[in-house]
Amino acid sequence: MSDKPWGGRFREKTAGEVEDFTCSLHFDRRLYRQDIAGSMAHARMLAKQGILSQSEAAAIIQGLAEIRQEIESGEFVFDPAMEDIHMAIEARLSAKIGDLGGKLHTARSRNDQVALDVRLYLAEEVEGLLEDLIELRRSAARLARRYFGLIMPGYTHLQRAQPVLFTHHMLAYDEMWRRDMSRLQESLPRIKVSPLGAAALAGTTFPIDPHVTAAELGFADVFRNSLDAVSDRDFILEFLAHAALIMVHLSRLAEELILWSSSEFGFVEIADAYATGSSIMPQKKNPDVAELIRGKTGRVAGHLMGLLMTLKGLPLTYNRDLQEDKEPLFDAVDTVRSSVQLMAGMLEGLKLKPERLNAALHGGYLSATDMADYLVNQGLPFRTAHEQVGRLVGYAEFQGKELWELSLEEIQRFASQAGPDIFDWLKIDNVVARRTSPGGTAPARVEEALKKVEKELGL
Amino acid sequence: MSDKPWGGRFREKTAGEVEDFTCSLHFDRRLYRQDIAGSMAHARMLAKQGILSQSEAAAIIQGLAEIRQEIESGEFVFDPAMEDIHMAIEARLSAKIGDLGGKLHTARSRNDQVALDVRLYLAEEVEGLLEDLIELRRSAARLARRYFGLIMPGYTHLQRAQPVLFTHHMLAYDEMWRRDMSRLQESLPRIKVSPLGAAALAGTTFPIDPHVTAAELGFADVFRNSLDAVSDRDFILEFLAHAALIMVHLSRLAEELILWSSSEFGFVEIADAYATGSSIMPQKKNPDVAELIRGKTGRVAGHLMGLLMTLKGLPLTYNRDLQEDKEPLFDAVDTVRSSVQLMAGMLEGLKLKPERLNAALHGGYLSATDMADYLVNQGLPFRTAHEQVGRLVGYAEFQGKELWELSLEEIQRFASQAGPDIFDWLKIDNVVARRTSPGGTAPARVEEALKKVEKELGL
Amino acid sequence: MSDKPWGGRFREKTAGEVEDFTCSLHFDRRLYRQDIAGSMAHARMLAKQGILSQSEAAAIIQGLAEIRQEIESGEFVFDPAMEDIHMAIEARLSAKIGDLGGKLHTARSRNDQVALDVRLYLAEEVEGLLEDLIELRRSAARLARRYFGLIMPGYTHLQRAQPVLFTHHMLAYDEMWRRDMSRLQESLPRIKVSPLGAAALAGTTFPIDPHVTAAELGFADVFRNSLDAVSDRDFILEFLAHAALIMVHLSRLAEELILWSSSEFGFVEIADAYATGSSIMPQKKNPDVAELIRGKTGRVAGHLMGLLMTLKGLPLTYNRDLQEDKEPLFDAVDTVRSSVQLMAGMLEGLKLKPERLNAALHGGYLSATDMADYLVNQGLPFRTAHEQVGRLVGYAEFQGKELWELSLEEIQRFASQAGPDIFDWLKIDNVVARRTSPGGTAPARVEEALKKVEKELGL
Amino acid sequence: MSDKPWGGRFREKTAGEVEDFTCSLHFDRRLYRQDIAGSMAHARMLAKQGILSQSEAAAIIQGLAEIRQEIESGEFVFDPAMEDIHMAIEARLSAKIGDLGGKLHTARSRNDQVALDVRLYLAEEVEGLLEDLIELRRSAARLARRYFGLIMPGYTHLQRAQPVLFTHHMLAYDEMWRRDMSRLQESLPRIKVSPLGAAALAGTTFPIDPHVTAAELGFADVFRNSLDAVSDRDFILEFLAHAALIMVHLSRLAEELILWSSSEFGFVEIADAYATGSSIMPQKKNPDVAELIRGKTGRVAGHLMGLLMTLKGLPLTYNRDLQEDKEPLFDAVDTVRSSVQLMAGMLEGLKLKPERLNAALHGGYLSATDMADYLVNQGLPFRTAHEQVGRLVGYAEFQGKELWELSLEEIQRFASQAGPDIFDWLKIDNVVARRTSPGGTAPARVEEALKKVEKELGL
Repeated sequence: MSDKPWGGRFREKTAGEVEDFTCSLHFDRRLYRQDIAGSMAHARMLAKQGILSQSEAAAIIQGLAEIRQEIESGEFVFDPAMEDIHMAIEARLSAKIGDLGGKLHTARSRNDQVALDVRLYLAEEVEGLLEDLIELRRSAARLARRYFGLIMPGYTHLQRAQPVLFTHHMLAYDEMWRRDMSRLQESLPRIKVSPLGAAALAGTTFPIDPHVTAAELGFADVFRNSLDAVSDRDFILEFLAHAALIMVHLSRLAEELILWSSSEFGFVEIADAYATGSSIMPQKKNPDVAELIRGKTGRVAGHLMGLLMTLKGLPLTYNRDLQEDKEPLFDAVDTVRSSVQLMAGMLEGLKLKPERLNAALHGGYLSATDMADYLVNQGLPFRTAHEQVGRLVGYAEFQGKELWELSLEEIQRFASQAGPDIFDWLKIDNVVARRTSPGGTAPARVEEALKKVEKELGL
Repeated sequence: MSDKPWGGRFREKTAGEVEDFTCSLHFDRRLYRQDIAGSMAHARMLAKQGILSQSEAAAIIQGLAEIRQEIESGEFVFDPAMEDIHMAIEARLSAKIGDLGGKLHTARSRNDQVALDVRLYLAEEVEGLLEDLIELRRSAARLARRYFGLIMPGYTHLQRAQPVLFTHHMLAYDEMWRRDMSRLQESLPRIKVSPLGAAALAGTTFPIDPHVTAAELGFADVFRNSLDAVSDRDFILEFLAHAALIMVHLSRLAEELILWSSSEFGFVEIADAYATGSSIMPQKKNPDVAELIRGKTGRVAGHLMGLLMTLKGLPLTYNRDLQEDKEPLFDAVDTVRSSVQLMAGMLEGLKLKPERLNAALHGGYLSATDMADYLVNQGLPFRTAHEQVGRLVGYAEFQGKELWELSLEEIQRFASQAGPDIFDWLKIDNVVARRTSPGGTAPARVEEALKKVEKELGL
Repeated sequence: MSDKPWGGRFREKTAGEVEDFTCSLHFDRRLYRQDIAGSMAHARMLAKQGILSQSEAAAIIQGLAEIRQEIESGEFVFDPAMEDIHMAIEARLSAKIGDLGGKLHTARSRNDQVALDVRLYLAEEVEGLLEDLIELRRSAARLARRYFGLIMPGYTHLQRAQPVLFTHHMLAYDEMWRRDMSRLQESLPRIKVSPLGAAALAGTTFPIDPHVTAAELGFADVFRNSLDAVSDRDFILEFLAHAALIMVHLSRLAEELILWSSSEFGFVEIADAYATGSSIMPQKKNPDVAELIRGKTGRVAGHLMGLLMTLKGLPLTYNRDLQEDKEPLFDAVDTVRSSVQLMAGMLEGLKLKPERLNAALHGGYLSATDMADYLVNQGLPFRTAHEQVGRLVGYAEFQGKELWELSLEEIQRFASQAGPDIFDWLKIDNVVARRTSPGGTAPARVEEALKKVEKELGL
Repeated sequence: MSDKPWGGRFREKTAGEVEDFTCSLHFDRRLYRQDIAGSMAHARMLAKQGILSQSEAAAIIQGLAEIRQEIESGEFVFDPAMEDIHMAIEARLSAKIGDLGGKLHTARSRNDQVALDVRLYLAEEVEGLLEDLIELRRSAARLARRYFGLIMPGYTHLQRAQPVLFTHHMLAYDEMWRRDMSRLQESLPRIKVSPLGAAALAGTTFPIDPHVTAAELGFADVFRNSLDAVSDRDFILEFLAHAALIMVHLSRLAEELILWSSSEFGFVEIADAYATGSSIMPQKKNPDVAELIRGKTGRVAGHLMGLLMTLKGLPLTYNRDLQEDKEPLFDAVDTVRSSVQLMAGMLEGLKLKPERLNAALHGGYLSATDMADYLVNQGLPFRTAHEQVGRLVGYAEFQGKELWELSLEEIQRFASQAGPDIFDWLKIDNVVARRTSPGGTAPARVEEALKKVEKELGL
């Protein structure tokens, strides 16, 4: 039964369906680069420590380099009988350089090897995602700059609440993405920890130096406990949580783009390149990309949830359940990266319709709060002012008028303290301009905020 | 821009990344059979209603049959520029039979077409899964029969509690699977509802008859509301919930198999064909299949969760978010079916170790409850009896003896009512045999229960 | 250490924090009615089987009735030292009727007792929820009737697609709720299974008759396997899945109500009784109830997920983890029932704004599909017709006109086959009226559908 | 309708069920301290900026201090007609100091107020949790020190793999908790960001200084964008993700404690204070606390999932859905803190059973890997060595012997290179001692690691 690297004590063959069920080659083959890089670093360390001779190490490294080349050129035959990418590469190495190939396994097991490969993979992807987020923030900042000065209704409960600058609205998303970036950056040192040298679970009898391997791979840190090293998947869960949160942020913006693209809002037009049509309704232009981003939020959160559940209650150390970590991770990485990239592209080509935004400043009584503030300034307690304005709004609505379209007399019927300067307070532009508190929507404040962001982003 | 079926009003090309992002061909191509069957049924209905001529319908059906043949023989070229399997087949049809191909689109949209395809697919898979579950129950029943009479500790809190027949234990799982089957069976009528005829969302102006199409496809029911027909994904969520519950059941049995395979329990030996070894530790035999089944429980529950989240808050009717329904569904179907099948295979080859099970009947004071029952029969209130036995157990533990190894005198020191017949009550076999209440573990009861199950399963 | 019913073998007291941690009295006290009903039925069965004398049973039942009375009048003192409601009631019973109280424990354990209580509770609540759903469907049907004939845009991708009757739209939700009801109804027989008689896990040595107890409690069915009886929580998971799906349905309608209440849509006005205002913005009227219903969807789905995770990988039979079933269940029941009830109330008071709905029929080119159908009738292949109309829509949009505001000459420039009868096809009323396919939006079809629903609901 | 602070424009009363549904007082009342602290800081800032006079601020602060006193002494009447704790306190303040109470609302809304309260609450709890984790790590380290030198089987796949020090095993958990702490610590600066001054959503017209308020509250940072400030719940999601991961870690240890407490493993005895008994089975001692911790992992992960779902797709800024953030947060905080505390207590009282651990070193062929290493040292390729040892293990198992119980002749029949020094390699103590690689299980390495941890923890 020795076609398996562990066949010695087995008397019966693995069932075919079992091979399919346990095989991970079809998804972990994407780790080939990391696997080869890890093996090369391991071989160099073994040589440095005198466990392999320099020429042995050189032959192994040469063999691995050739295999990488074979894979990248498409020559490499992925044999499904191999359980995983590690076996596939090892078998090929032995075919190329004979028994020496087996020596690469010295002081290493698949347990620490696979942990390393995933860490190498994720470190790279997180760095890529950080760049994607920078690009997204740049797209958003450019859009925010392009439409600086444009006023739109700010919403609470999807009801028009107070007028804000469109730029201010976009910068709210920048805050979310900055937090996303800070979380990802802080997670990197926890990802870049080399587990190589933990061997199967207990360390090894060979005089290895894990720091050498780590340094070869550009990892600053090394595992402290061999049992933890082979069973730790925290860094994956942590990433999935960050990814789910990024998707939630994108889903909020996607929802707004979908709303804004509707005939009812009509605030924006998404570029043709980011929309699709209907096979049956010739007039349709659908915000499919935004919808898919919103929809995929569930997918990524589902992966997080699934892996939490998989890990629940597992005793130490490695259990085969852990093999279930890779597919959700790969899919989450792909999904979140493409979603971020496409959102950037969509914002880049987004056109606002100033006349529709402008029209939306009417009809929501967006200066009502300011009228209450005005009455407070006249000495009324806020609650009384609030109630008077509430009644006035009811009256205006019934008349089908804006507050500023009422006569002073009408206004005074509800708010006797109001003087002629009230009309100045009711102007939308002034409502925006007066909100000069730090972080507020007054143009001067928003200009400061945008400049800061542009500087951070090198714009 | 007319390379898209909806390109008429678009002035700009879809971005390449957008095509990749929105494309579903790589996963929905597995629906080709259902798509073609649905189209054939639609064509027949159109002909029956006089919307197409008989010869038009015949040409379309012939073309579709050829395409199916092309796909199954591997000749068909899947062009990634096609958005999905529906477009891929439609384009090929038009290439084969010209403009007539387009007529198949009469009174149908992709919205009702895709809903139908998924329903056809799932109906088939649920029926397959029901058969898988029957097979699993048969394997379990055969195992239960094979070891009839064998006693093992029943556990609560993973502490030995009372002795039970192994067969009784296996039949507990049969109950779960029976419930799983009843849920699946009840869901079928909600799956087998034809949405064809809802068109894009509002019905169609053509004189179609959806019942004809449904009958052609073997579906008993037809949608009642066109808006619901194109946006309903309940049947998928319902399946995912059932699938998650099946996986939870399997995970419980998998956990037990893993425990029982440990050196500490040592109750069973999994067949070599269902275990794997270690590449580094020559002595290992690992219950990988059981571990993977347990681990994949998270995966399926994650898919359920993800789709619930995707659907949350979607306004009617079709939104592109719904495209996210298929990948989790396909993966859940594949996962749950292979898990059920492999569990069946694993049980088939499972060997119990009677001597280890036997040994485990010692040391847990498994007859303590019966001694309390005995004292109740002597007139003691249950609580007093319970406390006396509790103290006796403490004494026996300290002496390192079983209850039946104590002298009557020792017993009476804690429970003065005990007479010499107490030893009869303490015998494990008798403990089991006395539990003759319906559903209890006495051999006669379990024999009845097993017979019933065997009959249900045609064994 | 005998202050606990299980203290016999323990030498050390339970730590105070441990008591708090393991205590369930603060949440399971709501099961007092079920617990007492179950105990009464158990006592009656014990008497019928001659295990208790009739007078013993009578005394126990009398004592339990008094305790119920004490709890309902507020006299009962819930002592947190009691682990759970079962202990609290049992202790009180013993205080009232002495040692006889302990006899109620004969042939029963907390494991089967607690399983029964939850089943009794859930059966009642599911029946209540079914009534709530009927009421909700009635409210929706009355609303649908009230506004029969009113046309609104049907949406896909939140883009206006084709005109539909508002009634048709509301009936789409009726379909969802019918399915919800059918799922709940089918689950009832799986809930109403009495586990009493499984005892701790293995059945009992007393000559009980579980069917008698079940009949006393109005349950049609009895457990078949004692191990399963004490560890089965499927019926809770099944309910949570149904509840999550009901919430998803409500969240979709809630989303629409929120959209429709916005200034931009302006289709409806929610009754003041179902809205709230802003403490700072006097003009606001917020759809809080709809938002909370939408928000609570996550809560219920989270409970489902949590319990799936809790159950994953638990070996048989009872494990204390299972105590975690009740809080999510109670909260899900409360949440889904109040959400359904409030949605009903909200629909009851909902006012539509016909003029706004009417205005929304313009601007979305809602008759574009029909113009394509018209061209197909003139002999064009659908794809060609689709493309011609797509271009015409682009032209009309540029001109700021509806399709029916174009001249025939303009139309013919894009679609040469169009004749003067095209204008008839473009009229929105006609677009709706022509969709007479089964399940379609034509008034005649919708009238049929509404009548059917009204009949089902006894309206 | 002016019994509500926003009643001005409403003509109809809120329905009673709606009040219940929207009311949060029953759960947010636990924020009273934070709410009062936030209000005091706000009042001081308003005074400092000249918006209130010093005497006004003093009166407000005095009133608030009295209210806090009233709440803490139990005098305060929580009126369910108040929507939330903010309203309850504000109403009481106005009752005490009249119209002046209303001035506290200047430049603040409930939106920024509630966001602040939750941040204050969570910052405190995270700091408390960090201390809990320190205590847990100390308990674990003391346990690790107490049993230093004790050898146990290390497991992969729950199969005995290689011998390790018990101390080494415990230190694996220390690694997890260190990571948990680093994540929590890094999250603190994102929690301690004052949102006060964002007002309803757009900032305020008053000349406030948010930095003053923040400094008063001990927060280092201040919001940058007002829209984000009122709608950001990232810090809650981030905490829930960290909490779920902590629970996963605890669930793994809980699982091990449950396994180790079983008769089959028998490695440990949990202190009576942390176990419970059975009401029916007198001999039982159940690891309830460990089971509940494991079970509650689902609960916390469910809360995470639920809130992710609630937030998905919400447009900016505040939506009432966000009210659903507090219950899961409060429950997660309580659950994770008590779980950590109880785990610490349980480890403190844990007794190991050296003789059982010792016995477990037999029977798993734990030195098989080392024998393979030995053969590699003799020049065999690892794969060949692995296979020879695999066969030898099969033979030994069949003979019912340990490897070291075989004769050299028997050994050589499978591994001809083996010499008499092989017996030295097979000794379990030596197997452990030889694993001197960094992070490995050799006593010297583990002593280093434990010392480091003890130092970190001030032990």
